Amino acid sequence: MRYAVLGTGAIGGFYGGQLARSGCDVHFLLHSDYDIVNQRGLIVESVHGDFVLSAVNAYADVAKMPPCDVVLVALKSTQNHLLPTLLPAVVQPGGAVVLLQNGLGAEPDVAQVVNAVADGVHVIGGLCFICSNKVGPGHIRHLDYGNLDFGEYRTDYAPAGVTEWMRQIGADFQQAGLGVTLSEDLLQIRWQKLVWNIPFNGLSVVLDATTEEMIGNPVIYELAALLMQEVAMGAKSCDRPIPDHYIQTRLDHTEKMKPYHTSMKLDYDAGRPMELQTIFANPLAMARSRGVELPRIAMLYQQLQFLNPQPESHP
Amino acid sequence: MRYAVLGTGAIGGFYGGQLARSGCDVHFLLHSDYDIVNQRGLIVESVHGDFVLSAVNAYADVAKMPPCDVVLVALKSTQNHLLPTLLPAVVQPGGAVVLLQNGLGAEPDVAQVVNAVADGVHVIGGLCFICSNKVGPGHIRHLDYGNLDFGEYRTDYAPAGVTEWMRQIGADFQQAGLGVTLSEDLLQIRWQKLVWNIPFNGLSVVLDATTEEMIGNPVIYELAALLMQEVAMGAKSCDRPIPDHYIQTRLDHTEKMKPYHTSMKLDYDAGRPMELQTIFANPLAMARSRGVELPRIAMLYQQLQFLNPQPESHP
Repeated sequence: MRYAVLGTGAIGGFYGGQLARSGCDVHFLLHSDYDIVNQRGLIVESVHGDFVLSAVNAYADVAKMPPCDVVLVALKSTQNHLLPTLLPAVVQPGGAVVLLQNGLGAEPDVAQVVNAVADGVHVIGGLCFICSNKVGPGHIRHLDYGNLDFGEYRTDYAPAGVTEWMRQIGADFQQAGLGVTLSEDLLQIRWQKLVWNIPFNGLSVVLDATTEEMIGNPVIYELAALLMQEVAMGAKSCDRPIPDHYIQTRLDHTEKMKPYHTSMKLDYDAGRPMELQTIFANPLAMARSRGVELPRIAMLYQQLQFLNPQPESHP
Repeated sequence: MRYAVLGTGAIGGFYGGQLARSGCDVHFLLHSDYDIVNQRGLIVESVHGDFVLSAVNAYADVAKMPPCDVVLVALKSTQNHLLPTLLPAVVQPGGAVVLLQNGLGAEPDVAQVVNAVADGVHVIGGLCFICSNKVGPGHIRHLDYGNLDFGEYRTDYAPAGVTEWMRQIGADFQQAGLGVTLSEDLLQIRWQKLVWNIPFNGLSVVLDATTEEMIGNPVIYELAALLMQEVAMGAKSCDRPIPDHYIQTRLDHTEKMKPYHTSMKLDYDAGRPMELQTIFANPLAMARSRGVELPRIAMLYQQLQFLNPQPESHP
């Protein structure tokens, strides 16, 4: 299978790099880092072992990319307004698009975009459990973790079961040394991942704090737990109950993490727009449409909108 | 009547200065500014007219102050742990203590302190509607407003009506050119003042923003209104309903204010502890004891506890 990677940063550079290294045919779309990666290759420092991908199929223009069976979308979700331009140019009819993004609610838009131009394109959510940063042009530093959880999208997030596309893509990632889970219900795993992302991404910006500073403070530990319970209320409103022990497991796990600046904090500090639409606005709207208010999450979202460096563009 | 002023800063310096200027016998307790005020006097720049109080009854030690009929407590409420030492030394038996502080829940402690040593001391809350800052040692800048609202404390905040002490003190303040309201129910006016103080003091710190930046942002305008509604829920739980139009009046008024750093923001920026006990913890506890949760206010309080420069000392 031929892979395209849209967005060769912390996520796309790491996963695309791992796939290419294991022998997959991977084609990378780059923007500002095109020249350097084209000349020097892609540098991945990883806790699993450093490597340099010296011969990279790099492109600055999506129109020059070959049609690909699987398109990994590793842009920030704040860039999703570019997808109607990018995806039709690169995805093979009958192929698959994998959204390696946080939050929820992006898949319906993507499904509409790709199926308007290329019939039968599968849309898959890929949830990345990873600490990885881009530390320089074409230079990725992978700090910890790396597992992926895949789930295929069906209209209105109806559970899709484990599909053949998920199996094939999952096998390639496993072949590249990555831990993979195939989930039957994309909306369930998207809500579950928000249990961590909503409190810790949001509060890290408002409180100017690392994960360690937050989880180590008893008051913020309690607030994070309350926010997690609200995420569980939202999930339940969508008939995706989250087991109680899942919340405690997330809290316990955070206590053991290395001190870490969340991706939202890194965006904020760099003056980039934050991923508020998929991580906050869409989950709140989904719960509200089912008659459930999540007041603490809504307040955190209001604070983040005020702090957001630039307004997000939406399609 | 002889007045003592404990804490000669933005509030005590301004109101004590106005009383002294109008001919009242006022004695000022100072700490770090004692030497300069003793030598040079107290400078008040005010929108009502600048003046210098050149001969100030200044004291560095409460034990040297004469017994006073009325003690104006103009310390930050974070300093209230000093009151068991200060008040018995200066208040006349049968006299009055006026708490010129924000928030609620300090009067019961003060009543206990003063009546343990001097029988029949009246405890009065004085709510200051004022923009005033200390801009240097013994140098106050009064920017806007200045009205006071007095209410006398009774055990468990039972309404006291308008008392003789309130009338006498109110008359002295009016004589000094200040607008005065005498309220029959201290708890009612303390809850009402929190309608503004909770959202704007709290959010100004968390969002690093002036009043103008907050009220001018539609999302924060909405959040402020929601926090105000929660204050009204707290007040209602104490049988002190706040009229709906009061909230809208506060919002309208804030839109017309000059850009202004709240007192909590000034404390935070100066690395001083914030007045979280009386403005957040006590109102939350009062509502909770009546079975009412205020989730947004509780969350703001949690965020502020994390940000608080130093832990507050409590008696």
